Amino acid sequence: MLHRLALVLGLTVAPYMAQAAGDVVAFFLDNGMQVVVIPDDRAPAVTHMVWYRVGAGDELPGQSGIAHFVEHLMFKATDDMASGEFSTVVEANGGSDNAFTSWDYTAYFQRVAADRLGLMMQMEADRMRDIIFDPVEVATERSVILEERAQRTDSSAGALFNEQMRATLFLNHPYGRPIIGWRHEMEALSLADAQTFHDLWYHPNNAILIVAGDVTPDAVRALAEQHYGPIPASPDLPVRARPTEPPHIANRRVDFTDQRVANPYVSVQMLAPVREPGNQAEAAALVILAELLGGSGQTSLLARRLQVDEERSLYAAAFYDSTSLDPSGFSLVNVPVPGLSLDEAEADLWRIIDDFLSDGIDMDHFERIKFQIAANDIYSEDSTQGLARRWGMELTIGLGVADIESWPDVLAAVTPEDVMAAASRLFTDPVHVTGHLMRPPAANAEISQ
Amino acid sequence: MLHRLALVLGLTVAPYMAQAAGDVVAFFLDNGMQVVVIPDDRAPAVTHMVWYRVGAGDELPGQSGIAHFVEHLMFKATDDMASGEFSTVVEANGGSDNAFTSWDYTAYFQRVAADRLGLMMQMEADRMRDIIFDPVEVATERSVILEERAQRTDSSAGALFNEQMRATLFLNHPYGRPIIGWRHEMEALSLADAQTFHDLWYHPNNAILIVAGDVTPDAVRALAEQHYGPIPASPDLPVRARPTEPPHIANRRVDFTDQRVANPYVSVQMLAPVREPGNQAEAAALVILAELLGGSGQTSLLARRLQVDEERSLYAAAFYDSTSLDPSGFSLVNVPVPGLSLDEAEADLWRIIDDFLSDGIDMDHFERIKFQIAANDIYSEDSTQGLARRWGMELTIGLGVADIESWPDVLAAVTPEDVMAAASRLFTDPVHVTGHLMRPPAANAEISQ
Repeated sequence: MLHRLALVLGLTVAPYMAQAAGDVVAFFLDNGMQVVVIPDDRAPAVTHMVWYRVGAGDELPGQSGIAHFVEHLMFKATDDMASGEFSTVVEANGGSDNAFTSWDYTAYFQRVAADRLGLMMQMEADRMRDIIFDPVEVATERSVILEERAQRTDSSAGALFNEQMRATLFLNHPYGRPIIGWRHEMEALSLADAQTFHDLWYHPNNAILIVAGDVTPDAVRALAEQHYGPIPASPDLPVRARPTEPPHIANRRVDFTDQRVANPYVSVQMLAPVREPGNQAEAAALVILAELLGGSGQTSLLARRLQVDEERSLYAAAFYDSTSLDPSGFSLVNVPVPGLSLDEAEADLWRIIDDFLSDGIDMDHFERIKFQIAANDIYSEDSTQGLARRWGMELTIGLGVADIESWPDVLAAVTPEDVMAAASRLFTDPVHVTGHLMRPPAANAEISQ
Repeated sequence: MLHRLALVLGLTVAPYMAQAAGDVVAFFLDNGMQVVVIPDDRAPAVTHMVWYRVGAGDELPGQSGIAHFVEHLMFKATDDMASGEFSTVVEANGGSDNAFTSWDYTAYFQRVAADRLGLMMQMEADRMRDIIFDPVEVATERSVILEERAQRTDSSAGALFNEQMRATLFLNHPYGRPIIGWRHEMEALSLADAQTFHDLWYHPNNAILIVAGDVTPDAVRALAEQHYGPIPASPDLPVRARPTEPPHIANRRVDFTDQRVANPYVSVQMLAPVREPGNQAEAAALVILAELLGGSGQTSLLARRLQVDEERSLYAAAFYDSTSLDPSGFSLVNVPVPGLSLDEAEADLWRIIDDFLSDGIDMDHFERIKFQIAANDIYSEDSTQGLARRWGMELTIGLGVADIESWPDVLAAVTPEDVMAAASRLFTDPVHVTGHLMRPPAANAEISQ
């Protein structure tokens, strides 16, 4: 039940090239449930996933956290299973299971031996419609999610800071709300809220079944028709129309002070376009841009200049979420070495960006990034699972099979000119949110500091 | 159809003392419509108002501006009247009419000769349920509200800045949305949206009738029963439960730059408690605090120190909205003299606040403020109308008759210690939003500036 944290760089696309074109098979059941099969016979195991096209971005105002709460409650009793039985059965069959909630999706995964696929489908189909919301379980599980918030968010200055940054970046869109929920709203989440949310969204025509591993498409189709096929489509499935952002016209700042901060840092975030059906070129250029500026490792421009050459940063990086239903964030982060102020760290970030905008792209670096993106993960053991997860994310945000299959080609087609044009559009518009995560000032500081 | 702008200082409370205790009569019709009568025979005229307990704070996300749009559409045709006939009839009878939308209420006013009261009720009752939403009128009026936004907001750097400040101050509550609406959402407001909003909220059990002027309570009751009495209560009236704010834990800043700024200024805003049923003491202390620090005229602490003594400000003031359904804002503003930076102006504000917190209250000033609050407007010609408007605002935010009638006494009972304690609670918590409204920097400024 982990949140999606930073698995969103969207860079590990190579498996598509290796396997997608011929191997991945996608179709629909008669009730509207989409099915994706990713055959891989390297191990006699399967990953079975059901993704719902609903997440924290689809919650009613005042009910932040309900998508994640329902995810937790899906492990309770159904008409056929006792509370907790789902995971117990998976484990008894030698498998593992998990679930994830993001702003755009809620997903349930199991990894089991290939011959247990039918059992997984039977149990997952059972809880899709027959989960029972019990008052005692709801009360208990509400304590669990509140404790989860305490552990993951309230006890972490960085997590609280990120929460404040998002709430500031988004003026109108529900992406500004935390997935886990605002504590005061989580405390009020009721059985009726959970029931209503589940009744609205948990239907086969809002779900995507993804099976990856040692299976054939025909076998998956037969099992899916047996287990999921009998569940009727909902005629009342809502359209996912979230409030969108007004133009961002004012720079904003977040100054968050916390005793627990070990290394103060500066974060700069701005809205950025994302992959759209039939229109992925800008997002592809931004993927390359983020990798050039601040991808993992010390070869990115920010890391090389600030960490290696100048030794002014402990860590400098860039992040971009290309795979999101609505426009999301492009961000820069700089953790200065002790002795440098956050204002200096902020100026350092913009100095490197300015240099990049005037100097242009180092072609060696560009080719290396392109190669890495193409080569990344081809031989990694979990590439099939990674591929399955990516298909789930991409389908839940509204991309089509053609978009997903063409994405590696769109990435491969990005030119240095495309990247510089995207950088210019992103950074020439001066509107962004700048955050400083700090330790408390000295005791005698003025009240305004 | 003006918005409520700054009529919210809540200080002109004296008419209550002069007239309220014995004179104001409040009761309910059988269908739940509340009626307030404020007799005043100084002129043979009446003010007739219907207030609905609904405003921009009650809009669905993505439909910002719908409350105000419906207010506009209420002047179109009903089953009995042609489009525009309402105002034409008022004018033909020598009267004037208007309407207002705020975050917490939507109100319709007419001022006419006392013998036309029945006619006003007949027309207002007609449009409460029988307004017709016509596709052509909806399209035309949408252009009107978009033009209103262009005129009032988009053409004004100060208005855009205020909009950004509110959107930043409120992390979760709909008070962060503009009453007029975000332009991109206004453009999408449909007939169905207006119809749904009206159907949900425009009912006698969500309305307050206020009649002030040359009438008797008995006459008002008879007319109200005749015209409004037959309209059935809605059994499906929603509870006004808006999303509330999480704790404000990070200072935030808004830097808004606009070519049109004549005088750059700094604004500091923070959340503050408001009048609650049975619990108005903190709000009363904050009313006095705002007046002491930065009330109108040049005798307030900020104006005297920064404008008069030091000549560092063109204008310095404090504002507090005591009468709001949910916690609202306390704000400080400082427009520095040319040559002083906004950073200096910001420091000046906090220097005066710091001095106030350590020096305490000048008792002469305190007594003067208390006297002004008690004396204000007793003899002004429009005090009856002002009183009527205040009853409307106060009832729509959920205060009871007892709260409204006791408010002057609550204000009168505020001690200097109460004010200092409220100031300490407000200003010792360092979390606030600071805004700088600026002219564009020089051409060669860095991209980050």
